[in-house]
Amino acid sequence: MQDVRPVRADRIEQWELEADVVIAGYGIAGVCAAIEAARAGADVLVVERTGGWGGAAALSGGWIYLGGGTALQRSLGFDDTPENMERFLCAALGPGADEARIADYSRGSAAHYDWLVDCGVEFKPEFWGEPGWEVPHDEGLGFSGGENAAPFNTAPASDRFSPAPRGHVPRMADKRTGVRGAGYMLMRPLVETAERLGVRAEYDLRVASLIVAEQDGVDAVVGLKARRYGHDVAIRARRAVVLATGSFAYNADMVAAHAPRLIGRPAAAIEEHDGVSILMAQAVGAAVAHMDATEVAFFGDPQLLARGILVNGRGQRFVPEDTYGGRIGQATLVTQDNQAYLVLDEAAHEAGCATATSTPYFRQPPTWVAESVAELEAEMGLPDGVLQATVELYNRHAARGVDPVLGKKPEWVRPIGTPVAAFDMRGFTAGFTLGGLRCDLDGRVQHVAGGAIPGLYAAGRCTWGLCAGGYASGTSLGDGSFYGRRAGAAAACEHAAEVRESAVK
Amino acid sequence: MQDVRPVRADRIEQWELEADVVIAGYGIAGVCAAIEAARAGADVLVVERTGGWGGAAALSGGWIYLGGGTALQRSLGFDDTPENMERFLCAALGPGADEARIADYSRGSAAHYDWLVDCGVEFKPEFWGEPGWEVPHDEGLGFSGGENAAPFNTAPASDRFSPAPRGHVPRMADKRTGVRGAGYMLMRPLVETAERLGVRAEYDLRVASLIVAEQDGVDAVVGLKARRYGHDVAIRARRAVVLATGSFAYNADMVAAHAPRLIGRPAAAIEEHDGVSILMAQAVGAAVAHMDATEVAFFGDPQLLARGILVNGRGQRFVPEDTYGGRIGQATLVTQDNQAYLVLDEAAHEAGCATATSTPYFRQPPTWVAESVAELEAEMGLPDGVLQATVELYNRHAARGVDPVLGKKPEWVRPIGTPVAAFDMRGFTAGFTLGGLRCDLDGRVQHVAGGAIPGLYAAGRCTWGLCAGGYASGTSLGDGSFYGRRAGAAAACEHAAEVRESAVK
Repeated sequence: MQDVRPVRADRIEQWELEADVVIAGYGIAGVCAAIEAARAGADVLVVERTGGWGGAAALSGGWIYLGGGTALQRSLGFDDTPENMERFLCAALGPGADEARIADYSRGSAAHYDWLVDCGVEFKPEFWGEPGWEVPHDEGLGFSGGENAAPFNTAPASDRFSPAPRGHVPRMADKRTGVRGAGYMLMRPLVETAERLGVRAEYDLRVASLIVAEQDGVDAVVGLKARRYGHDVAIRARRAVVLATGSFAYNADMVAAHAPRLIGRPAAAIEEHDGVSILMAQAVGAAVAHMDATEVAFFGDPQLLARGILVNGRGQRFVPEDTYGGRIGQATLVTQDNQAYLVLDEAAHEAGCATATSTPYFRQPPTWVAESVAELEAEMGLPDGVLQATVELYNRHAARGVDPVLGKKPEWVRPIGTPVAAFDMRGFTAGFTLGGLRCDLDGRVQHVAGGAIPGLYAAGRCTWGLCAGGYASGTSLGDGSFYGRRAGAAAACEHAAEVRESAVK
Repeated sequence: MQDVRPVRADRIEQWELEADVVIAGYGIAGVCAAIEAARAGADVLVVERTGGWGGAAALSGGWIYLGGGTALQRSLGFDDTPENMERFLCAALGPGADEARIADYSRGSAAHYDWLVDCGVEFKPEFWGEPGWEVPHDEGLGFSGGENAAPFNTAPASDRFSPAPRGHVPRMADKRTGVRGAGYMLMRPLVETAERLGVRAEYDLRVASLIVAEQDGVDAVVGLKARRYGHDVAIRARRAVVLATGSFAYNADMVAAHAPRLIGRPAAAIEEHDGVSILMAQAVGAAVAHMDATEVAFFGDPQLLARGILVNGRGQRFVPEDTYGGRIGQATLVTQDNQAYLVLDEAAHEAGCATATSTPYFRQPPTWVAESVAELEAEMGLPDGVLQATVELYNRHAARGVDPVLGKKPEWVRPIGTPVAAFDMRGFTAGFTLGGLRCDLDGRVQHVAGGAIPGLYAAGRCTWGLCAGGYASGTSLGDGSFYGRRAGAAAACEHAAEVRESAVK
C-alpha cells in the first residue's frame, strides 16, 4: 500500500485531473454519490482502482434491505411501516447499532426503493419464502435478516415486530447481455444513469492519500493523490471528496488489529477491499467505530439446516436453525469459537436434498453416520452423553411439534430418528468487515475531536453504517446506496469551495 | 472534553512548563516511564489530572502478571519458563493477541519482577491457591488467569501448558501509614523512587491536545497543551511526550462506538479514564487496535461458583465454574448476552459460605429455592426440561467425580442434590477497555501509515497491550509497568530533539 499520509496542496506541482466532486470507488456507494452530486449540479469524477465499474456490489447477490412499505412489499401484500422496520433493525443489528441512523434509514427506505426503480433497477413482483442461500430464480422479495424466525417471531418479541420481508433483489435475467447476477443488474442501470448525467470515470487509478489545505485554521480536504501505472496523479476536488472504496476485509494487518476472528476467512467478493479509505481518513484525524463488527456467512444448505439441529463443541444447540444464515454465522464464529456440527436423521437429509431449491453447492457427504445417537456422539468424539441429552430434549418437545428452547418454527420441528448423521461444519464461516469511518447522516466524515473534516465525505462499507453487532443481508447495499446518495448531494453543496480555491495553486 | 486537535508550535505564545520528557498521567505506566527516563538522564515532568499520583493502579487490587521464573515463583517452588508463560498467554489472551509482544514480555518478566523489588515493592513469599476474588491477606502469589483450570490444565492442552501461578500481589500491610491496598503499595515505592531521581510532578493539569511542529516533512510532537483552573497551559517536551492516561472505560461515546457491551457497566477504578490520550494521538494520525476488547469482571463469589453450575438463558453450562473470574465474565458478557444463573444445592451453598476466605461482599440470598430441579426450573421460567437435562448429565458424570463437558476440576465436582437454589446473575458483569494506541515494543506510537509518530510515546491502558480477546488479572499493571519503562527509556533518548528545537519559539 502507498503512504496514506496527507499531502499539503501547496506541494502539488500539477493537478492532472479535476472536478467539483471527486469520488473514490465505483461500487454501490460511489455510483449513488455520483448520481446525486451530478443532479445537484456538480461536475463529478469517479476514480476507480480496477479496469471497470462494479465493485463488490456487481459481484454480490444483490440483496438490498428496504422496507417500511415499499411499492414491492405492498404489491405482494406485505404490511410494513418505518416504525416496524426500525424496531426490528435496532434489535437485530446491535449491540451498538446507531439507532438514529436506523430511524433515518427506515423512514427514507420506501422512497429509496422508488428512486432505484426510477434509475432503472427492476424488481420482479414475486416473493420467495423458503429457506435458501439466495433466491433461486429472479424473485424480487424475500426474508434476509431472520425477521420470520426466533427470537423476532416469538412472544414477547412478536408483539413488537411484525415480520416483513425486506430483502429486495433486482431482477437477474438480462435479455441484452445474458449476464444474470442480481448485483450486476443493480449496478448497471445506476452506472448508466450516472453516465447520462455526465459523470466522468477514470479507471486503473488507485487512491493513496488525501490532499489538504488549511482553511480557517483547520485542514480541509481539497483533493486526492492516486497512483496509475507507477506514477502519482494529483486530483483536485473543487468542492469535496467522497470515499467509497469498500471494507477492509482483505487488509490482513487491519483484520488482525480489529477483527481477528476473520483472520484467514475474508469474503467480501473482491480483493480490492483493502481499507485504504479508512486509513487515508484516519491520517487526517477521522474517527472510526465498530471496527470489530463483521458480517459472517455460514456455508451450509439452509434446507438441511432447518431440518436438523446445529450443535456446538459441547453438543449444545445455540441458534434456531431456521433463521437467517448470517445470524447462524455470527453465532458460530463469535460465540461458539467456530465450532458447529449439523445433526439430522436420514429422512430429514433425504427430504432436504430432494427440495428443488436447495443449494447443491453446499452439499457434502455426512462426516459421520450411525445407527444411534449414542454411537454418533462417540464417533464424533463429543463428551459422553452431551449429544444424547440434547437430542432427547429436542425430541421430547418435537413430539409435540414445538421448540421452546430456541423457537424453531413448528414446520421444521420433527423428532430426530435413526439412522442419524452429523456434518462437521467447524470453520464453515467467512465474512467481511462492517466497521469504518464515523459519518453524520449526510456522509460527512467526523474528526475524533468531533465535528466534520471539511471537504471529506464517505459512504458504503468503508464507513460504519447500519450494523454493529448484527447483520441482515442487504444492509450493506442498502446503507451504501442510501448514504452514498446523501454524501453525493451534500458534497455537491459544500460551501467551502471558494475559500479553498485560494489555498491551492 | 477539550478540543483534542493538535496545535502547531508556532502558535504557542508562551511555554509555561518544560522538560526533556513530559509524561501525561501519574499511574502505573506514567511512574515507570518517569523512573526510566530519569535514569537515562532526562529531566522529567509528569502532569496529572487529579490532585495526586496513583491513577487506577493505586485503587486496584494490585495484581501484576509476571512469570517465566520470577524469584517469588522460585522461592515458592513453582516451575515456570518464559516459553511456558508465552504459550499460555498466546492461548488465553486471544484471538488477536500480539504474539511478538507476549514473547517479549515473557522473556523480560522475571527481570521486571526484580526491578520492581529493587524499587522497593514488597512481595510476601506466600502462595494463595483457593478460589477467591483477591488474595484474602497479604499473600504475594496466586493464580490470576485460569492457568490451573480448563481448558489449560486438561488434555491435550496440559501437554503444552504447565500451570504456574503468575499473579504477583504487593504486600498490603503498611506499618507507616496503615493504608493496606496492594495497588497503593505498588505505586508508593515507585513514586518515591521517581521522586528520588528528581522527577517533577504537576497536578490538577488536564491534558487536552498535542503540540506539533514539522520535522523532515512530517509532524513531530513537541509538547502538550493542558488545562488548569480554566486556563490553557503549554508544556514543551524537548525530547518526547509519553501518554499514559489510562483506558476509555468512562468515555460513554467511545464505549458506544467501540465496546458497546460495556455500555452502562464501566469498572476501571477511576472515572478519569476518559480516553483522551487515544483521541489526542488519533488526531495526529495514530493507529488504534482491538478497541472492542474488554476486561470483564463477574461479580460472584468464586467459592460458590466453583461449587455450583453456571447456566445461560437456555439452562446450558458454558464455562468451567472454577476458572478465573475474568474468563467467566467475558464468556457471560460476550457469548451469553449477559445471561447467567448459578445453580447449587443447599449443602454446597452452606459449604461455600462457611469458607473463611469466601467473599461476603458478593453474598446475596438465593433468588429461587425449590425441592427439585424440575420445580426450580419452572420457577426460573426456563424452557421445560433444559435445566433438568443439564443437571442430570452433570450429576451422572459427577457421580464418578469428573466433568468431561467443561473440565471443572474433580475437587469441585459433586452431584447436585436437593433442596436446590438458583441465583439470578444476569448482568453481574462490569469491566474496562483493553484497546488503544498501537505502539512498537519501545512505546513509539504508530501512525496509520506505518512507522512511528516522531516524539510520541504511550504506555498502559491507553495502548493496546498484551490482551485482545482474553484477559488475565495483572496484565494491565504488568504491561503498563513493563512498557511504561520501555517508553520512558526510549523517550529519553529521542534523537529528534535538536532538530525540533529550531521549530519551536
